[in-house]
Amino acid sequence: MPRISTKGMRMPESPIRKLVPFAEAAEQEGKTVHYLNIGQPDIHTPKEATEAVKKADVDILAYSHSAGNESLRTGLAHYYRNHHINVTTGDLMVTTGGSEALNFTFGSIMDEGDEVIIPEPFYANYNGFAIQSGVKVVPVEATIHNGFALPPIEDFEQLITENTKAILICNPGNPTGYLYSKEELEALAKLVVKYDLFLIADEVYREFVYDGVEHNSIMTMPGLEQNAIMIDSVSKRYSMCGARIGMLVSRNQNFMRTALKFAQARLSPPSYAQIAVEAALETPETYFTEVNDEYVSRRDILVDGLNSIEGVFCPKPQGAFYCVAQLPVDDADRFAQWLLQSYDYEGETVMIAPASGFYAQPRLGKRQARFAYVLEKETLEKSVEIIRRALTEYPGRYI
Amino acid sequence: MPRISTKGMRMPESPIRKLVPFAEAAEQEGKTVHYLNIGQPDIHTPKEATEAVKKADVDILAYSHSAGNESLRTGLAHYYRNHHINVTTGDLMVTTGGSEALNFTFGSIMDEGDEVIIPEPFYANYNGFAIQSGVKVVPVEATIHNGFALPPIEDFEQLITENTKAILICNPGNPTGYLYSKEELEALAKLVVKYDLFLIADEVYREFVYDGVEHNSIMTMPGLEQNAIMIDSVSKRYSMCGARIGMLVSRNQNFMRTALKFAQARLSPPSYAQIAVEAALETPETYFTEVNDEYVSRRDILVDGLNSIEGVFCPKPQGAFYCVAQLPVDDADRFAQWLLQSYDYEGETVMIAPASGFYAQPRLGKRQARFAYVLEKETLEKSVEIIRRALTEYPGRYI
Repeated sequence: MPRISTKGMRMPESPIRKLVPFAEAAEQEGKTVHYLNIGQPDIHTPKEATEAVKKADVDILAYSHSAGNESLRTGLAHYYRNHHINVTTGDLMVTTGGSEALNFTFGSIMDEGDEVIIPEPFYANYNGFAIQSGVKVVPVEATIHNGFALPPIEDFEQLITENTKAILICNPGNPTGYLYSKEELEALAKLVVKYDLFLIADEVYREFVYDGVEHNSIMTMPGLEQNAIMIDSVSKRYSMCGARIGMLVSRNQNFMRTALKFAQARLSPPSYAQIAVEAALETPETYFTEVNDEYVSRRDILVDGLNSIEGVFCPKPQGAFYCVAQLPVDDADRFAQWLLQSYDYEGETVMIAPASGFYAQPRLGKRQARFAYVLEKETLEKSVEIIRRALTEYPGRYI
Repeated sequence: MPRISTKGMRMPESPIRKLVPFAEAAEQEGKTVHYLNIGQPDIHTPKEATEAVKKADVDILAYSHSAGNESLRTGLAHYYRNHHINVTTGDLMVTTGGSEALNFTFGSIMDEGDEVIIPEPFYANYNGFAIQSGVKVVPVEATIHNGFALPPIEDFEQLITENTKAILICNPGNPTGYLYSKEELEALAKLVVKYDLFLIADEVYREFVYDGVEHNSIMTMPGLEQNAIMIDSVSKRYSMCGARIGMLVSRNQNFMRTALKFAQARLSPPSYAQIAVEAALETPETYFTEVNDEYVSRRDILVDGLNSIEGVFCPKPQGAFYCVAQLPVDDADRFAQWLLQSYDYEGETVMIAPASGFYAQPRLGKRQARFAYVLEKETLEKSVEIIRRALTEYPGRYI
């Protein structure tokens, strides 16, 4: 029998996948499960986008340009300039989701055995893309005690070897929600210039920033023209996860030319979705204000609620729609499973994402879990109550 | 300045990319250029598909299942059973184009340095996917003299090393249009079973088969359950290149489980396109009959026309919508450029795809070019006339 690859065996499963059967079983038993584990927002997609697709007269659904439709790229360049990111259509490429933008990036700058340094906890799928490209992930530990701020620059510097090609950050972060300060980004910028590294920033949550704080894009930093690569996506911004449209943005023309060859190999990004996204760029500002107001309320309910539980510590993040909390339990994987399998409060329970899947070092995050606040406020209130009561009954309680 | 990867430098450019500036210049000079180089059909997309998208009420454009919507997979399994391929929804996965299906396949079965044997000439983007996955392409030469039939099995067997993991065929073939016979496929089947290899068949042109001949899918062959992997796509079948929907089909459950991990990392295939494809499955049989009748007429005009030119030899293929012709020229790359740069007949010229880009061995295909017959009959007639006259004037004529 022919065998699958070592690479294939090393590909990680989704961190919550092993819990799915327990969630399904809980529902079959008649329990209501509140899904705090997911990143699929319940916010509606802007009407501008969905109406444009309805109105489009498609006779032949043809390939687009491999870098995306010219009109869409023009619109995106305009969007970025409105967000203080001064780029031209030549500095950006439309990709099939932010996933593909990162895949093209890894392929364009790294060979088998090359290394990328990533603060952990980090978005679990970075592991998958790294394995696909034969890239080694070198984690640098961020800590919950300061809300997952950037680890000291010396910690990064110690990890740099001759195989290091890039540092990858997610800003604001998934799973932490942490928003990097200008000073943190400047320290990183200095480091990558010193060692001739790329700085890759996954900024897909750029517009989900709260409390009047500003987001700083690496694309606005002087002196980083050759080093900065931005990964972007419309999935969360316009609640269009299913569009599968992302963007790869860099002023390094050698890099962009190389990435275009990867784009040409796969022919083009999806055409219908490009129609939707071009129209979504016309979404009125009020949409984002309303959405952000909603997320702030949800965040406060969830994070304040969690912190009001004895033994729980959850830093309050200023971006994205996730938080990571420390729980008074022996093992968050076990607790998450127990919640689905053995617990309910008035017939309801919750599904959470154990944080172990977001750490590369197995010793870390064992007592932490990620919570997404993409559900309605009433559901979040109820969920906090369920967790509060569950923690008093959980046999592995441990403070 | 940070550097791009060796992998990135090795990524091939599209074989016709260097000709594009010459085509653009020709148009700017006022010449009409007939594009015989492209694989984008001019056939309309079935109304069933485009209307379904118009009618869809999308409130939240959400992620689908990573393997594609359950309803679409059910429809696809039904489609395959109607085409004598007895598979269940668990044996197939919806991918972002056939490109992604092949990418997942390479990642799931091959590690850095592993080898895949491919009869050449072959679809140029196979090179790109191989480089992305660190896979070595080992070409085995097919010859124009027998219409690019399967090379002798001994030629494959001689190339098998301990690093060989798979044989990849395209059936019917791009760029050759060659349709493998049942005997050829059985010989390959015996070989892959003997050496525990995967047999990957790119069958995206499966329904473009002419002259009453039948297509044989590797998925119908007994004894290949663990070895056979089919790459499929709706791009050409329903003239939906821009949908970016492909399929990965195999009964090897270990392989499918591994491929699903790659699929999970990129979250999901595009949602709008899945709506379109599910509806496209209802396309009436008459659509395909009409399309195939049209392609047969076009093929006959192009291939018979080319063969009527002194010094041209073009085997008549029984599938897809391409052919490869031997031309009486010193160098097909030079001739293709000359056609755009220095020639016109009554203000018109043609763009062709030099075959060198479809061969891995640099010595091969120098006097060959690929022609696509995806243009109207009148245009094809005119194009043949242009090539006939051009060949009498081309300074590098060589018989």
